[in-house]
Amino acid sequence: MATVFGGVEGGGTHSKAVLVAADGKILAETEGPSTNHWLVGVDKCIENINDMVHRAKVQAGLDPNVPLRSLGMSLSGGEQKDAIDKLIAQMKDLFPTLSRHYFITTDAIGAIATASDRGGVVLISGTGSNCKLVNPDGSQIGCGGWGHMMGDEGGAFWIAHLGVKTVFDAKDNLVSPPHDVTHVRKAMEEYFKVRLLQQNFQKSYFAGFCKKLAEGAEAGDALCQYVFTQAGRVLAKHVEAVLPVAQEPLLNSDIGLPILCVGSVWKSWELLKPGFTEGLDKLAASDKFKGRFNGYSLLILLKTSGLGGASLGAQSIGATITMNYQANVNIFYQHTFNSSQ
Amino acid sequence: MATVFGGVEGGGTHSKAVLVAADGKILAETEGPSTNHWLVGVDKCIENINDMVHRAKVQAGLDPNVPLRSLGMSLSGGEQKDAIDKLIAQMKDLFPTLSRHYFITTDAIGAIATASDRGGVVLISGTGSNCKLVNPDGSQIGCGGWGHMMGDEGGAFWIAHLGVKTVFDAKDNLVSPPHDVTHVRKAMEEYFKVRLLQQNFQKSYFAGFCKKLAEGAEAGDALCQYVFTQAGRVLAKHVEAVLPVAQEPLLNSDIGLPILCVGSVWKSWELLKPGFTEGLDKLAASDKFKGRFNGYSLLILLKTSGLGGASLGAQSIGATITMNYQANVNIFYQHTFNSSQ
Repeated sequence: MATVFGGVEGGGTHSKAVLVAADGKILAETEGPSTNHWLVGVDKCIENINDMVHRAKVQAGLDPNVPLRSLGMSLSGGEQKDAIDKLIAQMKDLFPTLSRHYFITTDAIGAIATASDRGGVVLISGTGSNCKLVNPDGSQIGCGGWGHMMGDEGGAFWIAHLGVKTVFDAKDNLVSPPHDVTHVRKAMEEYFKVRLLQQNFQKSYFAGFCKKLAEGAEAGDALCQYVFTQAGRVLAKHVEAVLPVAQEPLLNSDIGLPILCVGSVWKSWELLKPGFTEGLDKLAASDKFKGRFNGYSLLILLKTSGLGGASLGAQSIGATITMNYQANVNIFYQHTFNSSQ
Repeated sequence: MATVFGGVEGGGTHSKAVLVAADGKILAETEGPSTNHWLVGVDKCIENINDMVHRAKVQAGLDPNVPLRSLGMSLSGGEQKDAIDKLIAQMKDLFPTLSRHYFITTDAIGAIATASDRGGVVLISGTGSNCKLVNPDGSQIGCGGWGHMMGDEGGAFWIAHLGVKTVFDAKDNLVSPPHDVTHVRKAMEEYFKVRLLQQNFQKSYFAGFCKKLAEGAEAGDALCQYVFTQAGRVLAKHVEAVLPVAQEPLLNSDIGLPILCVGSVWKSWELLKPGFTEGLDKLAASDKFKGRFNGYSLLILLKTSGLGGASLGAQSIGATITMNYQANVNIFYQHTFNSSQ
């Protein structure tokens, strides 16, 4: 068969696989369950990937027993070299006809490789949060992504926690709430029913309360709006944390700094906006960036980040997939700082 | 046999049982593993209690098949009425010769009943934290104790987390650390080895890092000292949270407000002291308490809080155990506010 590259977008709740030709044409796409090896275990992770790719080969009319040229996987939890090496070794062992070569990167890097080959910032706010800056020369730096115990500021879990904690602290007379807690307290009682907090709770269920807070904010509740403003602020802080290492072309591109926004919390952009734009306004006006940081664009992916994974996988063996980056993204917000700032 | 009352001090890692006569004489004491039903399950909790009390009866030379008059249990996790009722029903069912009557209260209330029959504040800082104020008339109010996900500010887990988070945020350039992080970073690398944070971690092991921070603070590291100062501050905030409902006799006693300090973090009192005393100084000088809150004493229990449990258990059936409160506590710090404040 013609050279076929594979890509996988692996998430904590669901995953996607994509097969693509060297000219960039998508041959097949399939979906599957979680492939986060921290959450489902290595065996299940590998099995899920093999199953999705197998189905994609069939969908594309390919012989499932002919290996792909390479399989590039963009996985949440794909940070650690040891774990990655082990994952790849097991895949080769268990499924020898899956692919000839393997490449694993993080969800952040896979996303950015789907949007551009000149780098940018990717700012993930899903259940957790994470920020990566990739320079045009490929060098990168990150902020966050340590899991909900160590931060994940601005993600759904963090937002839910901030809302719930504000109610607890108000009830305890420990901290005065910035706004009336009545709405959030009632929403909590309804969502969590009783007693849940003292027992083992599921991270994803807890984070799901973020959606209730978004509904409250849209209905005009001040405390709900406040927690999203705070989330916007702390997400802007992530950009601030990585920006000092940005190379000039990133700051000077015609759309300003490209910030690729990944994750379900960005659906509530209008709620994040006050805190986020305020944070970046301050950054642009700071001594360090005055006159250098002229604007930014917020982008959203229109295609699976498995495509970026496939592209990086191809590059890792010296091959190339022709990418039509403009078709892969949409700019949903753009801002230019007043040059007199 | 003569009337014998039982008491249990139930903790997250270990427990104690005590048998006591109506005149206050301790007849036997035994130890056992955790009796926190959230941690070990109801079956194991009941089994551990029965085993400790059985051994105590034997130790006291009593017939194990003759029930105690009452068994008063002071249990961490003993907050919720439903769970308590179920626990008691199962104990009666499974071990009919254990005791004729049962009474369950929280570790906080059991501790205070060991120290005084005129109320006071109990401030727990063990793995978690919790504060309860009991008035002379028995009315009470609490702050905290919601578990490590929702606070537990000033407990060992919180202190360990503050230290670790400061290092992560500094590494990420997200928040500037208040002091150099080198010592704490090295201590983390040694204590946690690698990768632990992303995987399931044990709450108690994580909290154990607090001890390393205490060692660092004693050796003079500024960041280690800082986290304990912060812990002292937030523990003082717990007192501030409950104090508005204190009845005058609590504020005016000859030793000032009695604050019963429970939990292993109090072993580091000298480290907590700067933040804690500063917090209470401010409180005493505030408009609300100026001239009303004249001083305080920090007390530590010399006897098991199972004794307070036994006393409350006896009271619950209209009986009385003569308590020698002065022998049960030691005052380890005392402060009188300058009346010119």
